[in-house]
Amino acid sequence: MTGVRDVLVLAPHPDDEVIGCGGSIAAHAANGARVTVVVVVERERSGFDDDVTDEEFAQETADACAVLGVSRCVRLDEPSRDLRSSRRLHLDVVRALRETRPQVVYLPHDNDDDVEHRAVHRLGVEALWMAQSSFFGEAGEPMSAPELVLGYEVWSPLARFQHVRDIGEHLEAKVAAMGCYRSQLAHARWDEGVRGLASYRGVLTSGGGHAEVFQVLQVAARG
Amino acid sequence: MTGVRDVLVLAPHPDDEVIGCGGSIAAHAANGARVTVVVVVERERSGFDDDVTDEEFAQETADACAVLGVSRCVRLDEPSRDLRSSRRLHLDVVRALRETRPQVVYLPHDNDDDVEHRAVHRLGVEALWMAQSSFFGEAGEPMSAPELVLGYEVWSPLARFQHVRDIGEHLEAKVAAMGCYRSQLAHARWDEGVRGLASYRGVLTSGGGHAEVFQVLQVAARG
Amino acid sequence: MTGVRDVLVLAPHPDDEVIGCGGSIAAHAANGARVTVVVVVERERSGFDDDVTDEEFAQETADACAVLGVSRCVRLDEPSRDLRSSRRLHLDVVRALRETRPQVVYLPHDNDDDVEHRAVHRLGVEALWMAQSSFFGEAGEPMSAPELVLGYEVWSPLARFQHVRDIGEHLEAKVAAMGCYRSQLAHARWDEGVRGLASYRGVLTSGGGHAEVFQVLQVAARG
Amino acid sequence: MTGVRDVLVLAPHPDDEVIGCGGSIAAHAANGARVTVVVVVERERSGFDDDVTDEEFAQETADACAVLGVSRCVRLDEPSRDLRSSRRLHLDVVRALRETRPQVVYLPHDNDDDVEHRAVHRLGVEALWMAQSSFFGEAGEPMSAPELVLGYEVWSPLARFQHVRDIGEHLEAKVAAMGCYRSQLAHARWDEGVRGLASYRGVLTSGGGHAEVFQVLQVAARG
Amino acid sequence: MTGVRDVLVLAPHPDDEVIGCGGSIAAHAANGARVTVVVVVERERSGFDDDVTDEEFAQETADACAVLGVSRCVRLDEPSRDLRSSRRLHLDVVRALRETRPQVVYLPHDNDDDVEHRAVHRLGVEALWMAQSSFFGEAGEPMSAPELVLGYEVWSPLARFQHVRDIGEHLEAKVAAMGCYRSQLAHARWDEGVRGLASYRGVLTSGGGHAEVFQVLQVAARG
Amino acid sequence: MTGVRDVLVLAPHPDDEVIGCGGSIAAHAANGARVTVVVVVERERSGFDDDVTDEEFAQETADACAVLGVSRCVRLDEPSRDLRSSRRLHLDVVRALRETRPQVVYLPHDNDDDVEHRAVHRLGVEALWMAQSSFFGEAGEPMSAPELVLGYEVWSPLARFQHVRDIGEHLEAKVAAMGCYRSQLAHARWDEGVRGLASYRGVLTSGGGHAEVFQVLQVAARG
Repeated sequence: MTGVRDVLVLAPHPDDEVIGCGGSIAAHAANGARVTVVVVVERERSGFDDDVTDEEFAQETADACAVLGVSRCVRLDEPSRDLRSSRRLHLDVVRALRETRPQVVYLPHDNDDDVEHRAVHRLGVEALWMAQSSFFGEAGEPMSAPELVLGYEVWSPLARFQHVRDIGEHLEAKVAAMGCYRSQLAHARWDEGVRGLASYRGVLTSGGGHAEVFQVLQVAARG
Repeated sequence: MTGVRDVLVLAPHPDDEVIGCGGSIAAHAANGARVTVVVVVERERSGFDDDVTDEEFAQETADACAVLGVSRCVRLDEPSRDLRSSRRLHLDVVRALRETRPQVVYLPHDNDDDVEHRAVHRLGVEALWMAQSSFFGEAGEPMSAPELVLGYEVWSPLARFQHVRDIGEHLEAKVAAMGCYRSQLAHARWDEGVRGLASYRGVLTSGGGHAEVFQVLQVAARG
Repeated sequence: MTGVRDVLVLAPHPDDEVIGCGGSIAAHAANGARVTVVVVVERERSGFDDDVTDEEFAQETADACAVLGVSRCVRLDEPSRDLRSSRRLHLDVVRALRETRPQVVYLPHDNDDDVEHRAVHRLGVEALWMAQSSFFGEAGEPMSAPELVLGYEVWSPLARFQHVRDIGEHLEAKVAAMGCYRSQLAHARWDEGVRGLASYRGVLTSGGGHAEVFQVLQVAARG
Repeated sequence: MTGVRDVLVLAPHPDDEVIGCGGSIAAHAANGARVTVVVVVERERSGFDDDVTDEEFAQETADACAVLGVSRCVRLDEPSRDLRSSRRLHLDVVRALRETRPQVVYLPHDNDDDVEHRAVHRLGVEALWMAQSSFFGEAGEPMSAPELVLGYEVWSPLARFQHVRDIGEHLEAKVAAMGCYRSQLAHARWDEGVRGLASYRGVLTSGGGHAEVFQVLQVAARG
Repeated sequence: MTGVRDVLVLAPHPDDEVIGCGGSIAAHAANGARVTVVVVVERERSGFDDDVTDEEFAQETADACAVLGVSRCVRLDEPSRDLRSSRRLHLDVVRALRETRPQVVYLPHDNDDDVEHRAVHRLGVEALWMAQSSFFGEAGEPMSAPELVLGYEVWSPLARFQHVRDIGEHLEAKVAAMGCYRSQLAHARWDEGVRGLASYRGVLTSGGGHAEVFQVLQVAARG
Repeated sequence: MTGVRDVLVLAPHPDDEVIGCGGSIAAHAANGARVTVVVVVERERSGFDDDVTDEEFAQETADACAVLGVSRCVRLDEPSRDLRSSRRLHLDVVRALRETRPQVVYLPHDNDDDVEHRAVHRLGVEALWMAQSSFFGEAGEPMSAPELVLGYEVWSPLARFQHVRDIGEHLEAKVAAMGCYRSQLAHARWDEGVRGLASYRGVLTSGGGHAEVFQVLQVAARG
């Protein structure tokens, strides 16, 4: 996809951006687009990973972003399992959108099987509307409509999808970015999981290869 | 799963039984169960595969069944794209059920993205009810309720599932069975697709390995 | 929308193409695209309009098409209230798609409150898949994927939509095309109805003017 | 509709009562009913309308109510984008219901495309149940069931509806009431939008004229 | 409910009219209304009830109708498990509606867990629209809109309902009518089942007694 | 159901455990299982039942538990109508689960017609996932997956269900347990209501007798 200058990805937790649309991020970056990732929820603090410092944890996201060619990563550090919808949080996302002024936006699809993913879907859809309205001046100047807003799949694969992207050239970058999340791989081999899902999606849509599929939330008329 | 003597799999087309539950079939067979596969729709006749004879086409299913350890394969040969719900077709499935008297039944889940898969789901659910009723004596004696009725995924992965089976030991059998469908692989590399989906499902449910997931349509109380 | 050479509109009955996407059709034609309209169901024959001959009735559609700039109108003449899904009917639509090879396709959305509209939605979605597959050679050579497949609203306005087109410049053509359906206007003033809906949609999406809104069923990656 | 003495309209924001059921309000008032409007959310405070004072803003609602013949307007002044479900808020609505003891109640329908509209729908349904129960004495005496509870459409027109009201005689009052919301019209011409939607609904349901359509949430047996 | 002169009940099979709305039928009849029952599907012919003759079977319905005070019973005798939607069948129902010109109509609700119940729901909704249109003159003169169209529950109780009728005075008539279906009671004690469901519905809606609950499909404005 | 050692029932309010699954609780206890009931919401405090002391109110639950054979009752005392999802509340349920380590879990089904029932459904599903994960060590050691997780019906009977339990032997215990909720029976005769629903479910599923039906949320593979 050429001609795209700015992309924004809204991720509930670190690594959702890789699982959901890592191949597409790498493709955008390879085509010269600036990609901004906004991570909503802070690190889960339940005493499990005591041997991973906060610095090491943050470095994982930074490494994954570097592998994919992400230009900027914004952390909103909302509390895990205490995520609340609020005006303040909506304005944080509106501000990120208005600063970025993206042509393409990615967020979790509307039915993902994780309560925080669905909350971030609703947050993103609402913030997109707010960012385009003439209100909410405290969060910057109104932006125009993105050309494409897409919902990605993490915990619940989509039963129906309206957009497919071949990620054959960027599969290894996606898997390598996943591999940067070392503390996460200790629990689950998502590096293998993303490869598997991409293969299934490739066979389903093109008879082979690797793909990411998306729910289309908005597509603009083309000039 | 031990203690299961008879299993029935309802497949819209040849190869759906492998994609949807090939690993589970192999596991049942390995545990000594007799597995019956009922294929509803006949070969698509659009002149595409002129170089594959009907005998060669039928042999693909036979080979796949042999790899998985299927005991019996029943073909109903309903016309492709002209599949109609009818009393006659329902009774055909009732008869297969009453002959088999299965403890476990597999059929497509209720929202698969193929019109004939959804039709076969409805056919199976209806026939299960009919087979247990005291009516329809022309199709055999009433059978008792299966212990487990499961919906499998082919074209639309399930957004929510209620049952998981680890197929790590039977993955290669599943892939090999898929490989028997040579005329199908010429169009789409489903052998790679089933491996990918099983890997994604394994990571999602157990942090690694390979799994099949199912919609639960009925589970009996255990004695 | 420039760069579009061919458009196909699937209409259950004459006049649905005007109500659902008449403004968009006029816009496509004004931009130089060839537009093909496929009408699925034949004239309702219940003795009501005895004073309108079949020739007069057919002329209404021809007149509306001329107003909008439609290049070609195909009539499938399926029986009203006896519409059946069949292989033959699917192949008729596949043939029209493969002859047209459209970049943009319009059909009724998936939840319109008319049983024949929903049947034509399913018919169109299925035929689109068939037309792109390598099977069904008796209905022509496989076509490539359209860039955009859209569902339009007639009896049930969309609760959510993913695409908007400003039809301000083509509103009067749409209303005039509606006016060609003289025997229909005798029952219901759809010329006023389409103006009203377009105004509501314009206010909702742009604060004023006139618009048509659509369900997005497929959008291709852009080169 | 004669014989109705009291009507209550629950509106998320000022002007929703006009868009959703302004024609019906005018009809009730013309028939002698007392109409109470309860507005839930306070004025959006994002610095946009600096040149409109709070007094001017409040006057718009008062003017619109006067045009429609509303007897009483209650403002709950909940914070915009920070609306929270709470016992206190539910009791505020229960109190308004028990004071009014309406035969007809209007609230947003259950699927309107605005997060605060859906929240107010749930609030209204819950408060209706609470108001009829023998609990919650701190908010007044239990009221009896309304004869009719209706969901109105604003952002998402209804895909299916169960009740239609011809508002031909009251259309101009509805449009004039909309015109009172001067600061709102500066953003979007809802005066034109409500006329358009009413025309579309009239054609759809009666072949012409103007109508409002509703989701039926409760209808009492008639004596 | 007084002032109702004519009622039409659409039943998929004999006894559905009793289970779904037998108490309401008795109430209508007690208030002087003429009630017409239209049974769509003929007797299931699977050799089960050889000792019940067709005359005896038909007499069961006649007896149940007599108990409830039904004025007229129309049998359409569509084939069981081979029920097809067709123009001819729709016109049969249109004709019954236009002959009856009912103020209140009952049909199965839209999600009952029986494929023929859902088919008869769609048939009824479509036929109601057709009966009110100015087309289809071969099936009689257009009728005006009923005041109330209600969906009743048989196999799937309603998760949400919009109308309740207290049937305390008519419960015994309902149970007695159910008792007339002797060949059916030999399989399932629906006489106890209807009493149980009515008790649950009474407690849920009024704290005790017996009730029938309904999905509201249409309610007319009252003069 | 033999072989079950521990059962956990999550109830929004006192008495939901009886209405939803009281017969199954009695059956589990009769088979030797320890049953833990977790009640989430505290007593409604609206001044209604001034003549019932808190001690008397608490005794009702204790009595009902004693009748059914419940081993332990945990009260979380969340505020009524102010129930909020929070990390703290989730951990409270995780702790109860990890202490109990149940083979069978009961919670309200996903669509019950009460906002607090749906909130407790989501709470339970989330807590089940958390309790099995290796995180959240502050709430105990990870537990293994239950064999069966079931959703029960209170305010909205299930339109589809996947599990049935014959409660014929335990019906009187269920009714007697309901009778212990004396302050509740003063408002609504739920003792009659549960008998009625169980009779309807028995006839529907077995042709007679009494049953409880459930939504299956998870069923483990059997060894």
